Amino acid sequence: MPSYTAPVNDIQFVLHTLLKASQQDIPGYEELEADITAAVLEEAGKIASNVIAPLNEVGDKEGCVLENGVVRTPTGFKAAFEQMKEGGWTALDCDPDYGGQGMPILLGTAVGELFSAANQAFTMYQGLTHGAYSAIHAHGTDAQKAKWLPKMVSCEWTGTMNLTEPHCGTDLGLMRTKAVPQENGSYKVTGQKIFISAGDHDMSANVIHLVLARIPGGPEGIKGVSLFIVPKYLVDEDGNVGAANGVSVGKLEEKMGIHGNSTCVMNFDEAEGYLLGTEHKGMRAMFTMMNEARLGVAMQGMAQAEAAYQNAVIYAKDRLQGRAVTGAQNPDGPADPLIVHPDIRRNLLDQKSFIEGARAFMLWGANMLDRSHRSGDAAAEGLISLLTPVLKGFLTDKGLEMTIQAQQVYGGHGYIEEWGMSQFVRDARITQIYEGANGVQALDLVGRKLAADGGKHVMAFFDLVKNFIKENEADEALKKDFLDPLKQASKDLQASAMFFMQNGMKNPNAALSGSYDFMHLFGHACLGLMWAQMAKAASEALASGTGDASFYETKLATGRYYMARQLPATSMHLARIQSGADPVMTLPAEAF
Amino acid sequence: MPSYTAPVNDIQFVLHTLLKASQQDIPGYEELEADITAAVLEEAGKIASNVIAPLNEVGDKEGCVLENGVVRTPTGFKAAFEQMKEGGWTALDCDPDYGGQGMPILLGTAVGELFSAANQAFTMYQGLTHGAYSAIHAHGTDAQKAKWLPKMVSCEWTGTMNLTEPHCGTDLGLMRTKAVPQENGSYKVTGQKIFISAGDHDMSANVIHLVLARIPGGPEGIKGVSLFIVPKYLVDEDGNVGAANGVSVGKLEEKMGIHGNSTCVMNFDEAEGYLLGTEHKGMRAMFTMMNEARLGVAMQGMAQAEAAYQNAVIYAKDRLQGRAVTGAQNPDGPADPLIVHPDIRRNLLDQKSFIEGARAFMLWGANMLDRSHRSGDAAAEGLISLLTPVLKGFLTDKGLEMTIQAQQVYGGHGYIEEWGMSQFVRDARITQIYEGANGVQALDLVGRKLAADGGKHVMAFFDLVKNFIKENEADEALKKDFLDPLKQASKDLQASAMFFMQNGMKNPNAALSGSYDFMHLFGHACLGLMWAQMAKAASEALASGTGDASFYETKLATGRYYMARQLPATSMHLARIQSGADPVMTLPAEAF
Repeated sequence: MPSYTAPVNDIQFVLHTLLKASQQDIPGYEELEADITAAVLEEAGKIASNVIAPLNEVGDKEGCVLENGVVRTPTGFKAAFEQMKEGGWTALDCDPDYGGQGMPILLGTAVGELFSAANQAFTMYQGLTHGAYSAIHAHGTDAQKAKWLPKMVSCEWTGTMNLTEPHCGTDLGLMRTKAVPQENGSYKVTGQKIFISAGDHDMSANVIHLVLARIPGGPEGIKGVSLFIVPKYLVDEDGNVGAANGVSVGKLEEKMGIHGNSTCVMNFDEAEGYLLGTEHKGMRAMFTMMNEARLGVAMQGMAQAEAAYQNAVIYAKDRLQGRAVTGAQNPDGPADPLIVHPDIRRNLLDQKSFIEGARAFMLWGANMLDRSHRSGDAAAEGLISLLTPVLKGFLTDKGLEMTIQAQQVYGGHGYIEEWGMSQFVRDARITQIYEGANGVQALDLVGRKLAADGGKHVMAFFDLVKNFIKENEADEALKKDFLDPLKQASKDLQASAMFFMQNGMKNPNAALSGSYDFMHLFGHACLGLMWAQMAKAASEALASGTGDASFYETKLATGRYYMARQLPATSMHLARIQSGADPVMTLPAEAF
Repeated sequence: MPSYTAPVNDIQFVLHTLLKASQQDIPGYEELEADITAAVLEEAGKIASNVIAPLNEVGDKEGCVLENGVVRTPTGFKAAFEQMKEGGWTALDCDPDYGGQGMPILLGTAVGELFSAANQAFTMYQGLTHGAYSAIHAHGTDAQKAKWLPKMVSCEWTGTMNLTEPHCGTDLGLMRTKAVPQENGSYKVTGQKIFISAGDHDMSANVIHLVLARIPGGPEGIKGVSLFIVPKYLVDEDGNVGAANGVSVGKLEEKMGIHGNSTCVMNFDEAEGYLLGTEHKGMRAMFTMMNEARLGVAMQGMAQAEAAYQNAVIYAKDRLQGRAVTGAQNPDGPADPLIVHPDIRRNLLDQKSFIEGARAFMLWGANMLDRSHRSGDAAAEGLISLLTPVLKGFLTDKGLEMTIQAQQVYGGHGYIEEWGMSQFVRDARITQIYEGANGVQALDLVGRKLAADGGKHVMAFFDLVKNFIKENEADEALKKDFLDPLKQASKDLQASAMFFMQNGMKNPNAALSGSYDFMHLFGHACLGLMWAQMAKAASEALASGTGDASFYETKLATGRYYMARQLPATSMHLARIQSGADPVMTLPAEAF
């Protein structure tokens, strides 16, 4: 069975050596001293390793079971969920007014990585609840917040998001679920929703569904969609759980992975619901929490890669097979460990250099969300809004790729379920699909975000890169290994954006044909920037003579690998983008 | 449930328009007239679509079951296997002296694609038998051939390959299974083998295991390994199946995919075995059939991609979601089909352009095997030997990638098992691992094949490319869209080989650090060559005014896509290769 150890040192490096969190001028960040975050991460890491990770395989094997209309979670899930609640882990970055601990999203994301890496399916029950919490927190009335939030913060009640219907996923304008106003101000919600993660289970006293539906007579399409709170059990004015609402589980899906999470078909049959926010503005309410939710999925992608990588390293050091080409390194043993072989190292370094770059990118993203929410910084909000589809699409695509590479280290054993490497692949696969499939992320990036506010956010990104290079190019080692490759990646990114500007106006297909490559090109540029910044931070730390020198040297070597061996992908993506619409659009549909 | 239709037209195009098979001066090729191969492919296609494909999901869901020491295959497998035998499909390219039909490997591979695409797990029972047949055919005595081959050709008895042991996969020199000589000339074989595909089942009267083992007192390591025929049941001189041999199934593995194939732990307990070939030359005996076996796995990779692609296309045309950015294309419907969206087309064209290029590459490979076997052409043997790891590694890596892209077209539905797209991914995944993991293919390519015979085979490849470009560069359209990109890819490939030559002698790690990228670079160059040749063939066919013009136009457009959007990967691989050993080898093992 795979093991998991929280990468506390690496997270601490990002929080403090790179981001210098406690010195940032953001309300609440003054609490993020290194010893405090270390203590929190160590504690969370213990639960992740000892309580949650051991349930990962159990969840995969047993899955959830639907019996008499009720979903039963795998053995051990309920007890572990109780521990999460008791430890206050569900409330970490929630509003203190409703029982939360008020910590920044930055710390919430850092801790979230540990739980997700240990057991994605399990952690989703809390993750979905947090999403529903955020929506109610942002759009609910004071009465709604007082009624629903405290028990969602504690996860005494959990939450869900109900968007997809059988005939519509991305295109929610086709939605049919309806909500009919009642005299008492509530609505009767009727319809079927599918792919509802954590839709029902046995770990909480109530499930609070957020449901998108149409109010009859409203505008057609996406502009006539409203958001409703629809609890599994009705709740009285004193907050007591009462009668069952018209909500039932139609089916439990059999999926490729995340078997421990209950993916439900939910049937709403004149269920009592309460409008959240404004009539017909349901999509806007959803969008406000989308950056956070998508960052969460990006985190899942990199977290699965981290968990898989840890086990690939253990196997590569342990498994004896063949001899190093330059001479035996384990001469007294029957063979050398796998890790002596260049191609195994190439495989592992692809993983390591991606994961550490991705972690920095993700935590920088969380940092921008905090800056936007807590300091009202519009520039930060604009930049994270631009980078959200990059985070989601790139980190989950590469996340899957890296779990596959980790599985490959195991050879034939990787394909056998009992070794656990297959599960990382199967679980990671969903992150490319849900919360907006990655093709939709690319469309959002190129079709909407890139040109938003006159393109000023992408210009801000280019300035960030340019200024960083300019400020640091006197450092020759940094320049050669990091700044020069970063400059090239940024140049490729600018050339792509320029190509879209010049051609996309005449023919939108010229831009959209390159959207997926642009998302990846942008992802590489972001990781290139992260690595350049981390290299600078590591070099300074080394020069200061404090801390663990071998950690910083490893960081620099890992960064050099990324710059030399991953960043050259940008020129390929640029070439694809510049080939324009013709190769993609020429064939008639019937020729496929 | 997914459907499958044999791509007869495309295979016919490769066999006749591209390869002009029946005009090739190879014994037996005179039978490969277009109407004959069309009839064979149509017939095989019916069985693939109607008999084998419907069992694909059944096999995945039921899997194999071990009961009282005997493996039971999924419902319907046995009846379908009988149909395969009765139709003579197991004997297509086998030696007529033993009941085969004597067709070239070219046709055997073309037909094999259909069966593999329809149901990889099912088709493996025959595939493994064919491998064992080839080994006995190449290395057996006349008496051994007469005894074992006829019933293996008909699949009355099936075969297996027993190489891997728990502690050794790639490094077979660590092998422990032993074979003790007996007075009657036979051996007693004792040991445990793992990952034995089709190791036991209920579809044949006997299972003929080929087992690698050590004869005590022989040389240590890989040079002391011999190959043995070890039947499940002993066979008397009249060919009757008799008493059980000391062979048993220790366990049936639970795998990520190919559930319909029985992957067994095989225990040999003083089992009676017969030496095949020469003592201690077991590895050489295995190697002689390795090119064919690895071509077979390459075929599986592209076949799963083809099957997945077909279903992605169906879904993309059927599913209505969103509107084309340039205006509604299905104005009377609630939305446009997915296929109007540029990024969906990008996704599908990645698949289509890979699959068709891969099919040509694979059939060209089979053609070279025939030329080598039937005409004793050493140049063909040298070239296919060089290209075999490229075929195996590149086609299976890309094969998996394409099944993932096909699954992505389905959005959330792709993750639900009942839609069948997950199975394509899970089944394709094994092709990167077995028959030599792809990292080992890359090692074989760079460490052994590239410099073999003074590097003359890779020079032959470069000459092939150069001459093709030279002969055709007067055709301006061909030059611009195909020959120029091909020239660039070939240049990148040559620069990589040059880098290895200049640096690999001093430091082998400088070459081996780039081996995986070289395999992919080479794969792209091969597909680039295939597409350039296909473009020429299609253009000529178009100009001649015969045949289906829209087929040829589609072929040209698909090829242009590959050249414009896939081939630019070569520069990225070159850059990675040229970064050399340092980024890969610097970190000490404990820093991972």
